[in-house]
Amino acid sequence: MRPSGRATDALRAITIETGVSRHAEGSCLIRMGDTHVLCTASVEENVPPFLRKTGLGWVTAEYGMLPRATTSRNRREASAGKQSGRTQEIQRLIGRSLRAGIDRVALGERQITVDCDVIQADGGTRCASITGGWVALRLAVNKLLKAGDVKSDPITTHVAAVSCGVYGGQPVLDLDYAEDSVAGTDGNFVMTGEFGLIEVQGSAEGATFSRGELGQLLDLAEKGISDLVAAQKAAIS
Amino acid sequence: MRPSGRATDALRAITIETGVSRHAEGSCLIRMGDTHVLCTASVEENVPPFLRKTGLGWVTAEYGMLPRATTSRNRREASAGKQSGRTQEIQRLIGRSLRAGIDRVALGERQITVDCDVIQADGGTRCASITGGWVALRLAVNKLLKAGDVKSDPITTHVAAVSCGVYGGQPVLDLDYAEDSVAGTDGNFVMTGEFGLIEVQGSAEGATFSRGELGQLLDLAEKGISDLVAAQKAAIS
Amino acid sequence: MRPSGRATDALRAITIETGVSRHAEGSCLIRMGDTHVLCTASVEENVPPFLRKTGLGWVTAEYGMLPRATTSRNRREASAGKQSGRTQEIQRLIGRSLRAGIDRVALGERQITVDCDVIQADGGTRCASITGGWVALRLAVNKLLKAGDVKSDPITTHVAAVSCGVYGGQPVLDLDYAEDSVAGTDGNFVMTGEFGLIEVQGSAEGATFSRGELGQLLDLAEKGISDLVAAQKAAIS
Amino acid sequence: MRPSGRATDALRAITIETGVSRHAEGSCLIRMGDTHVLCTASVEENVPPFLRKTGLGWVTAEYGMLPRATTSRNRREASAGKQSGRTQEIQRLIGRSLRAGIDRVALGERQITVDCDVIQADGGTRCASITGGWVALRLAVNKLLKAGDVKSDPITTHVAAVSCGVYGGQPVLDLDYAEDSVAGTDGNFVMTGEFGLIEVQGSAEGATFSRGELGQLLDLAEKGISDLVAAQKAAIS
Amino acid sequence: MRPSGRATDALRAITIETGVSRHAEGSCLIRMGDTHVLCTASVEENVPPFLRKTGLGWVTAEYGMLPRATTSRNRREASAGKQSGRTQEIQRLIGRSLRAGIDRVALGERQITVDCDVIQADGGTRCASITGGWVALRLAVNKLLKAGDVKSDPITTHVAAVSCGVYGGQPVLDLDYAEDSVAGTDGNFVMTGEFGLIEVQGSAEGATFSRGELGQLLDLAEKGISDLVAAQKAAIS
Amino acid sequence: MRPSGRATDALRAITIETGVSRHAEGSCLIRMGDTHVLCTASVEENVPPFLRKTGLGWVTAEYGMLPRATTSRNRREASAGKQSGRTQEIQRLIGRSLRAGIDRVALGERQITVDCDVIQADGGTRCASITGGWVALRLAVNKLLKAGDVKSDPITTHVAAVSCGVYGGQPVLDLDYAEDSVAGTDGNFVMTGEFGLIEVQGSAEGATFSRGELGQLLDLAEKGISDLVAAQKAAIS
Repeated sequence: MRPSGRATDALRAITIETGVSRHAEGSCLIRMGDTHVLCTASVEENVPPFLRKTGLGWVTAEYGMLPRATTSRNRREASAGKQSGRTQEIQRLIGRSLRAGIDRVALGERQITVDCDVIQADGGTRCASITGGWVALRLAVNKLLKAGDVKSDPITTHVAAVSCGVYGGQPVLDLDYAEDSVAGTDGNFVMTGEFGLIEVQGSAEGATFSRGELGQLLDLAEKGISDLVAAQKAAIS
Repeated sequence: MRPSGRATDALRAITIETGVSRHAEGSCLIRMGDTHVLCTASVEENVPPFLRKTGLGWVTAEYGMLPRATTSRNRREASAGKQSGRTQEIQRLIGRSLRAGIDRVALGERQITVDCDVIQADGGTRCASITGGWVALRLAVNKLLKAGDVKSDPITTHVAAVSCGVYGGQPVLDLDYAEDSVAGTDGNFVMTGEFGLIEVQGSAEGATFSRGELGQLLDLAEKGISDLVAAQKAAIS
Repeated sequence: MRPSGRATDALRAITIETGVSRHAEGSCLIRMGDTHVLCTASVEENVPPFLRKTGLGWVTAEYGMLPRATTSRNRREASAGKQSGRTQEIQRLIGRSLRAGIDRVALGERQITVDCDVIQADGGTRCASITGGWVALRLAVNKLLKAGDVKSDPITTHVAAVSCGVYGGQPVLDLDYAEDSVAGTDGNFVMTGEFGLIEVQGSAEGATFSRGELGQLLDLAEKGISDLVAAQKAAIS
Repeated sequence: MRPSGRATDALRAITIETGVSRHAEGSCLIRMGDTHVLCTASVEENVPPFLRKTGLGWVTAEYGMLPRATTSRNRREASAGKQSGRTQEIQRLIGRSLRAGIDRVALGERQITVDCDVIQADGGTRCASITGGWVALRLAVNKLLKAGDVKSDPITTHVAAVSCGVYGGQPVLDLDYAEDSVAGTDGNFVMTGEFGLIEVQGSAEGATFSRGELGQLLDLAEKGISDLVAAQKAAIS
Repeated sequence: MRPSGRATDALRAITIETGVSRHAEGSCLIRMGDTHVLCTASVEENVPPFLRKTGLGWVTAEYGMLPRATTSRNRREASAGKQSGRTQEIQRLIGRSLRAGIDRVALGERQITVDCDVIQADGGTRCASITGGWVALRLAVNKLLKAGDVKSDPITTHVAAVSCGVYGGQPVLDLDYAEDSVAGTDGNFVMTGEFGLIEVQGSAEGATFSRGELGQLLDLAEKGISDLVAAQKAAIS
Repeated sequence: MRPSGRATDALRAITIETGVSRHAEGSCLIRMGDTHVLCTASVEENVPPFLRKTGLGWVTAEYGMLPRATTSRNRREASAGKQSGRTQEIQRLIGRSLRAGIDRVALGERQITVDCDVIQADGGTRCASITGGWVALRLAVNKLLKAGDVKSDPITTHVAAVSCGVYGGQPVLDLDYAEDSVAGTDGNFVMTGEFGLIEVQGSAEGATFSRGELGQLLDLAEKGISDLVAAQKAAIS
């Protein structure tokens, strides 16, 4: 039995509220149960130095967590003077994931920065950031298309992410913090709308897992991605 | 005529939504028009070194702004590796202001950290942070009182803040960004519920103001504080 | 009775020694009693990026304190790896204040940096920095005028600053450290030679003050500014 | 055909030279073709604060790359003033992987730090670091066992890592830089000597991969791990 | 002919003004021509961790330069966020030099920090810092002796320093900036009052020097040290 | 008797293995007994800003030490976030020394960066870095000459370095760590192949030395430089 009473293959309640930022070109507040992430997409008409005069666009991401998004207060990274290794690892993952669904030629020489700020955390913040970040990106690109700044749609597919893990000996979908903190094995799965794998990260601290278990987690992940893509579609329609 | 059509002595629409954070001991989302600040109060059962074994408590504050809270995206301070001078100046002001309404003996040897994170900015973020920060602090202290951790109420009065300035030759209350960016003179006024002055900051860049004008701004500020304290009272009741 | 025996409206002994730096375009050593600040003004023939090709000049300030300017030794900020929030707040105030007395069109596209380094501290270092910084700035501008680099005088008025506060229940002018460390309410007042207000900062930690008290402090401040401007005039003549 | 002429399931030439550091408790220089990593294990008789008085030990890792380990010179991280996100991500992975093969109760309250410094890079440096790091760790633990500081062997299994990817449409084992820089899909696989999965990281930038391809990469990885564990055994015997 | 018209073995005009800081236990302003350094010695009743419970004292030094001490303004190190390599090298030299004249047993378990802040620079700032730093140290120790905190004098000898170099083919004493900036070879010589060598740093950028030339520079240095020690004696008497 | 049993004027066993880096334009691994330093020279076709359009080249150096190069593990500087004063002092010395043997006009407007990374330390790492760094530089320049990028040889002479000190009352050559840690007086001597002095650094902590002793150390140093230059010649032939 999961602490939340959910079925093993059930996502938490998910809502994606769009247009939450007056200034950003695209934005949403994604809630996966008690995990709430504000995602904004900002369009800038220039690219990093390594892409100048290549005609290629860029999508990048930054991730942050408010100090009291967590059970006990964490030190503010701006005050500590640097982003933790965990933060940098997560924002690199988000950027890499979103780029997998982008045609950088069609985007043209501009950059879209997706900021994912965790307002409240209850496990799965990096997955929620990817799923919500894609919605913000989609909305920002829609604005570029509508304005005629971009001619053909650079977004090639949905991108969504979900965590799975082994809790109480049972593979379960979409771990919340209560599950995540005790799960020996867990994984993050980033996929396209067609279940193409973008990133698979399976990890065991102080234990190992088998190929069979990895397969079970992938089955669950496909179920979850299917539901998340449906939620994305509902949000942007 | 103000860009928003407001009367010279009218605040923007204000809402204070409490209990927005599952984890924080006290929290609210304050909206002053399009300026939205999430305020959380975190109780820690220890104090900074300079207060150990004094029996005195401490209230401090930190301030942050999401990168796309503003019209164009600002660099994330955690990524830049330091808090700007402006950020530090603001969080020192918030902490100083909230301490003016606290009996540190009654609070006892514990620290409350008030985090004010600007979700969306349209001028007046430091004042909204103080007004909302007080509500978060009030709720966290209520929790301490209810649990019996604190015996007598350490909060001695309301603390609220508002900006005033000279816009188009006319003193006006509660500047929004459109007004603030062109006002020659502006001021931030922090007061108690009884109009006791905690902090007065009047400033002119490239101009000066007279004692008469300062008086007019103070008149407006008292009007604004009166309305803000009423909103605080409604929020916590 | 004040610890120094001064009348409530008496400044400390003030001397402004000019030309103390062989290299700087303008310089002075200002002494307000035991508070000694070395002020230098450096002219650079370029401006910050945001002002390029605007024809406008810029005046900015930096503030520092020698490690043993104070009763006990303070950690050197260069060694600590960053300027404190207090330092940044003060240098922003000095820059803002000096710019209020400058016609940036007449200055032309160049920058003057005013460095205020506290050699010895006994309260009121930010005010002494503004008053002395203006003298250094005046001398540097004189040099530009004499060389014909600037055609019409960009300095529009004197700028000086003084602190006032409530000590022992009595409003007093120009707090020294012994007074400042116990005063519940104090304020810094930056004015032009004509008593135009540039910046008013009144603050109470753990207490409040009334509008009447603010008025008394302003009365004292005008008296002080009058004396400081006279000292500036004597120094540059 | 692979650039190196290797079979699709062939590792690069591997050598593990032990005892290369006079000072470290355990050390080796691992060479995977032109990728050379110096691994040292340092025993310290204290643990991080979160483990004090728990009786549990800790294994952690740090990773670095000499500035000219790469084709063109990279900026020295010590000079840049911080470790890159990539460096932090890699060293977290190494530490997590090595801990999966450790019984932290048996290790006792001490810390072993494994430093992996890339002397020369040609792809696969994080995998070589894990495989070589385990050898250094094994030797350091042997020393503790021999000295009687540790009673029962805290090392529960071999830990090794290898990369696989799709190169020219073909799944191949142990990518070198020429392959890695053009592979659309690649993965890092960390396993125990019994093919228990510790970490699976499959990633596609600007593309996706299928579950079938992931399976093919896992098949290759098991072949590689088998060879790497044999090399570890030879090195420590 | 030297730019200043000095004889080859003549120091610049030297003055050492003591007691210039109200707060420091020992202080002086040393002027070697246009090079002016403010030296303060601060006594702290504790020592760095590596000396605790050893009964030994410590003398250390920090060095700084005001931004406009030089011909053109230099960036403030506190603002840059770190001390330059040059600054660190100089302050390590000052500390090492002063420790050579101290009996650390007699000093007892306390630390004296000598701060050398260059008010105006015209070459030879590190040497002036050592010579003046010793005077500040001497005065601080006198205070400890007078108060009975230290029983026997921990200062075993004078420590002074002077630069020499080859200017226009001619060995000269006490280089000023005009000479230093063109001298191919120069050296800094730190000695005791009895001409015991504490530190010899001879350096040639883009050239070399012979043992004979080194001897000539040492001859000049002894002459200079003799004069500097006389000035120290006059200052402290 | 020296701990190693060496004669007073004997170097440690020295080997210089060239071509150890696949990527660097020049490289060697120098071993002075148990002190091992990897030296690489990297050619970049641009120069620092202060040399642009001057036609002059630049040689610079960076120095690092692996965390476990020493008896006990040192904190990694990249992780600490800055290079220590000692590191910066050493790398400035290496660069200055190597530039003394370079004709910067003949080198042309390009930069060569010499990285010296200490793999294992047993005293004398800065001297080994200079001696080995010169070999790496020589090989990189040979490559430029062979490719016709440089027309005439910019290397004007050998540059090598050795330490000497007073151990057990006896001047000895090439101190190892056991000697260095107890020597009261020691010096580093950088010379050309013709015994031209580039840098002399003699230092005494807590003691002094005489001109006579300095002469004895110089005699030993010339003997050592002679042997080191012979080793350099053998390595590059």
